[in-house]
Amino acid sequence: MRIDIITVVPGLLEGPFSHSILKRAEDKGLAMVRIHNLRDYASGKQKQVDDYAFGGGAGMVMMIEPIAKCIDALKSEREYDEVIYMTPDGKTFDQKMANELSLKGNLIILCGHYKGVDERVREKFITREISVGDFVLSGGELAAAVVADAVIRLIPGVLNDETSALTDSFQDGLLAPPVYTRPANYEGMEVPEVLLSGHQAKIESWRFDASVRRTKERRPDLLEGKGF
Amino acid sequence: MRIDIITVVPGLLEGPFSHSILKRAEDKGLAMVRIHNLRDYASGKQKQVDDYAFGGGAGMVMMIEPIAKCIDALKSEREYDEVIYMTPDGKTFDQKMANELSLKGNLIILCGHYKGVDERVREKFITREISVGDFVLSGGELAAAVVADAVIRLIPGVLNDETSALTDSFQDGLLAPPVYTRPANYEGMEVPEVLLSGHQAKIESWRFDASVRRTKERRPDLLEGKGF
Repeated sequence: MRIDIITVVPGLLEGPFSHSILKRAEDKGLAMVRIHNLRDYASGKQKQVDDYAFGGGAGMVMMIEPIAKCIDALKSEREYDEVIYMTPDGKTFDQKMANELSLKGNLIILCGHYKGVDERVREKFITREISVGDFVLSGGELAAAVVADAVIRLIPGVLNDETSALTDSFQDGLLAPPVYTRPANYEGMEVPEVLLSGHQAKIESWRFDASVRRTKERRPDLLEGKGF
Repeated sequence: MRIDIITVVPGLLEGPFSHSILKRAEDKGLAMVRIHNLRDYASGKQKQVDDYAFGGGAGMVMMIEPIAKCIDALKSEREYDEVIYMTPDGKTFDQKMANELSLKGNLIILCGHYKGVDERVREKFITREISVGDFVLSGGELAAAVVADAVIRLIPGVLNDETSALTDSFQDGLLAPPVYTRPANYEGMEVPEVLLSGHQAKIESWRFDASVRRTKERRPDLLEGKGF
C-alpha cells in the first residue's frame, strides 16, 4: 500500500511517520507514506496556496490550482484507488472503514487547513470525504495521520503478532477486556485471581465476560441486535 | 493552560507540537505542552515499561510502576484538573468536550501503547477516559495530539481571528457551508454568483441555507429537535 499525503504543513507529519509501527511498516516494505508540500506546486514568487474567501469572512481558503497540479502530478505516476479529503463534514471514520481501506493499493489524502479547500476541489477530484470525529482540528494533518495509522496497522505482517490486532476493541464488536501485568500485587491492588490460574479456558471465559460487561456499561450501542 | 503528555514514543509527538497553531499558542504563552518519556521513570538497566499480560495472549501491557512515578512527579510540581487516559473504550471526544477542556488549567494525558495500560492505573490515577473514535490506533499518541489541537485552538487568542473558530463546523450545531476563493472561474467551474455580489446580507443568508442543506444531507442526526 502507498499513501500520498498532500499538506501545507509537512513538518506536522514528520514525527508520526518516522516512528513506531508506521516506520516499521515502511522498513518491511509493507506500506509507504509520502508527504507532499503543497507549496511546491504553487506558482509565483510567493508560492501562494491560499486566498481570502469569496463573500468575505474570517479564515483563508486553499486554492484549487496548486492542489490540481499536485494531484495531476501524482496521477501521472500511478493509478489511485481513492482521493480522500479530510474534513469535519465527511463520513465518520471507524474500524469498518479502516478494514476496507487497508485492502486498497494507492491512496491520496488531501489535508484541509485554514477554512478548508475551495469547494470545486471536492467536486472535481475527491472520491471520499472522511472525518475522524465531531470536532474541529486546526488542519487535516493529524486526522490523516490517524487514518494512516489505523489502516496501516491492519496490513498483515505490520504488527509483530497478527492476533494482536484481532483482539483489539471493535474488531469483534466488543470493547477489549481489562489487562494486567506484573507486579501481581501493587500496593495492595491485586490482579484478578483467574488470570494467574494458568487455566486457559477459564481465562478466556473471564475475558469474554469482562468484554461484554464493559461494552454494556460503556457502549451499549455496540451491542444492539446482538442478543447480549 | 498546560498539558503534560506521557508516552513511550515521544518522537511520535515531535512534529505536531513544534508546528502550526500549537507552536503559535506556546510562543504566545497561551498554552504549554510538555512531552514526557515514560522510560525516564522506569527502573533497572533495561528501563522496562511493559511486560507480558497475566493470563497470556498477544501484546504487551504497560506497567503501573513507571506510570505511577511519572504522575506522582508531575503532581508534586503542580495541581492537575484531570488525568486523562486515551483509550478506544473511553468517552467519545467531540466539540462539546473540547470546549469544556479548553477551560481547564493543567491536564495530564497518558497515552496507551501496545495492548494498553495495567487496569490498576485506570482505577488509581485516571479521572477521565477519552476515545477519539470507534477505531484502533497503534497508540494513544496521535489521539492525544488530536485532543490537544482541538482544545488549544479554542483558547482565546490562539487563532489569529477569533471569529474563525466560531464559524467552524459543530460550534453552532451545523456543518460549515462550502467555501470558494480565486479564481472565480476555474476551467469553467464558477463560484456561486451571490458570493461575488458584495451584498453581505444575501451572502450570510446563502451561507446559512447552504449549512442547513449540507447538514440535512450529511448529518441529519445533528438537526434532531432543532426544528429545521
